[in-house]
Amino acid sequence: MNMDPSKAKVPPMKDLTIDNITENTIRINSQSSDARLTYVLERLVTHMHDFARETRLSTKEWMVAIQFLTAVGQICSDVRQEFILLSDILGLSLLVDSIDHPKPAHSTEGSVLGPFHSHEAEDMAHGDAMSHDPNGEPCLVICTIKDSHGNPIPDVKIDIWETDSSGHYDVQYADREGPDGRCVIRSDQDGNFWFKAIKPVPYPIPHDGPVGKLLEKLHRHPFRPAHMHFMFEKPGYDHLITALYVRGDPYETSDAVFGVKNSLLVDFHPADKMVAKEYDVAVGSAVLEHDFVLVSEKEASDLRAEKSRKALEALGRKVKLIEGLPVPDVD
Amino acid sequence: MNMDPSKAKVPPMKDLTIDNITENTIRINSQSSDARLTYVLERLVTHMHDFARETRLSTKEWMVAIQFLTAVGQICSDVRQEFILLSDILGLSLLVDSIDHPKPAHSTEGSVLGPFHSHEAEDMAHGDAMSHDPNGEPCLVICTIKDSHGNPIPDVKIDIWETDSSGHYDVQYADREGPDGRCVIRSDQDGNFWFKAIKPVPYPIPHDGPVGKLLEKLHRHPFRPAHMHFMFEKPGYDHLITALYVRGDPYETSDAVFGVKNSLLVDFHPADKMVAKEYDVAVGSAVLEHDFVLVSEKEASDLRAEKSRKALEALGRKVKLIEGLPVPDVD
Repeated sequence: MNMDPSKAKVPPMKDLTIDNITENTIRINSQSSDARLTYVLERLVTHMHDFARETRLSTKEWMVAIQFLTAVGQICSDVRQEFILLSDILGLSLLVDSIDHPKPAHSTEGSVLGPFHSHEAEDMAHGDAMSHDPNGEPCLVICTIKDSHGNPIPDVKIDIWETDSSGHYDVQYADREGPDGRCVIRSDQDGNFWFKAIKPVPYPIPHDGPVGKLLEKLHRHPFRPAHMHFMFEKPGYDHLITALYVRGDPYETSDAVFGVKNSLLVDFHPADKMVAKEYDVAVGSAVLEHDFVLVSEKEASDLRAEKSRKALEALGRKVKLIEGLPVPDVD
Repeated sequence: MNMDPSKAKVPPMKDLTIDNITENTIRINSQSSDARLTYVLERLVTHMHDFARETRLSTKEWMVAIQFLTAVGQICSDVRQEFILLSDILGLSLLVDSIDHPKPAHSTEGSVLGPFHSHEAEDMAHGDAMSHDPNGEPCLVICTIKDSHGNPIPDVKIDIWETDSSGHYDVQYADREGPDGRCVIRSDQDGNFWFKAIKPVPYPIPHDGPVGKLLEKLHRHPFRPAHMHFMFEKPGYDHLITALYVRGDPYETSDAVFGVKNSLLVDFHPADKMVAKEYDVAVGSAVLEHDFVLVSEKEASDLRAEKSRKALEALGRKVKLIEGLPVPDVD
């Protein structure tokens, strides 16, 4: 750490005011050689300061915010991520996913990751049951994965997770014995995968903590419509985090975390004799079929770069991409 | 909590994108009758989303931020406030103080509160010693408090706190027995107060946590120039949080938390015989004399309202003040 003030390449800083604190903070934050870090901090400080100036934020309100953020941090644990929840209910999570994973027409849209993905899910074979909740309504899920040219994609790693029939993820139970309601599965040579689960139910996001109190102050309900999470990974393809939403859910148009998209709404239909026999399920039991379309890394990064360029040009700055992320081009 | 979606006064929300997520998040956050909360959230969401759009924030960077904020929250304790530290090094604390406590010419300027004020300081009589560090260089501090018309203000409650000679506040010692280096004192009938302390030394803010790591990444040193904190309270007067800075400190122009102002720089002089006798100190020992000027609540609130009005008008919004804080006037 450079602790020698004589080596600081910044001008003397004294008498900082409402009007000059921002440029000076940006200047003192611009000493590293990491152009991306410098740019991100520049925008962060600009927006944080403008927020305070435009609201005329009071010391009392600032202290409420300090205490709120502290409480959000303190309630986090190995199995609870309240900052992700906060980002989710403020629309930031959905926004970041949309920016980082732009989708060409006809590819599967993204949705929010949420705070309940876990890395302890077990590998499963096609046809296995990922949920063992006896109170859940059984369902069969049959999917395909294709690229944007319609070719099947084999050997994609798929993370799937959902709540039990009471609307809780496994990690929300202090006394759980192991993972349930989640699995990792791989697509076969024809880009297919299928598994048994339970029909998703709507549920409230955890609202016994600071984020729940904020929702209450804002007169917002904490519910998410019934959905099942999916995450797709394969080298050469853009990472896809999404979810399928049960059409007609009472919270379909007021999801607490803004995840619902028309293209992600799905319907269950009853299994006919052929499906029942092929997949070893009861005739008439619920079946969901869905086709996912992944975009290649190149398609995604080209689209991302194009949108980055436009966004920075709109800010009046020439852009340069470093590892795919924009920084102002000062040369 | 309103959990009935049929009662939500917001339009259906689905298919949210980079371009419409902000207005929709603002809309769902606008259901409470608290106009100030609605306005603060509107600006918060706007700036947070613009920040993500302008940086093209990646999912990976977002996750780094989530983990950083979580670590900041988790290191907080009864005696450590890392979020205040974060606000301090980003210039937000200085800015909020400047907004909330505008100062007319010739009144004492404010400075940052910092994370080390504590409510366990003991009441002290004039002339008492607030620091018992045998390694500190003793000093005598003699002050007056006047209003903006030059009249002395009696019975002001003054909180004073400083580090020991090694640059640590009492609360930073796990094994401390009680408060030291801090006190509460009251001005006498002529607006005077005086006490014994030690000459302040420069010190690094706590940099073994996430904020220290951020400073390191930014190639910033964590030092504050030598200073002594003061906080003034009396009904009818604007709350004043400030500090006096020792002129000529090596960190005078690069304070890690942006607190230094020319008007707050002070010099020590050696006690002459008269002072030595009157205050029971050694001839030649260090003396600091300073005159503070408090503004009345009315002066401060008038100035605050005027500046609020201008700031909101610059945003193109008519303003209404609720309990002194601005909200857009939509009537």
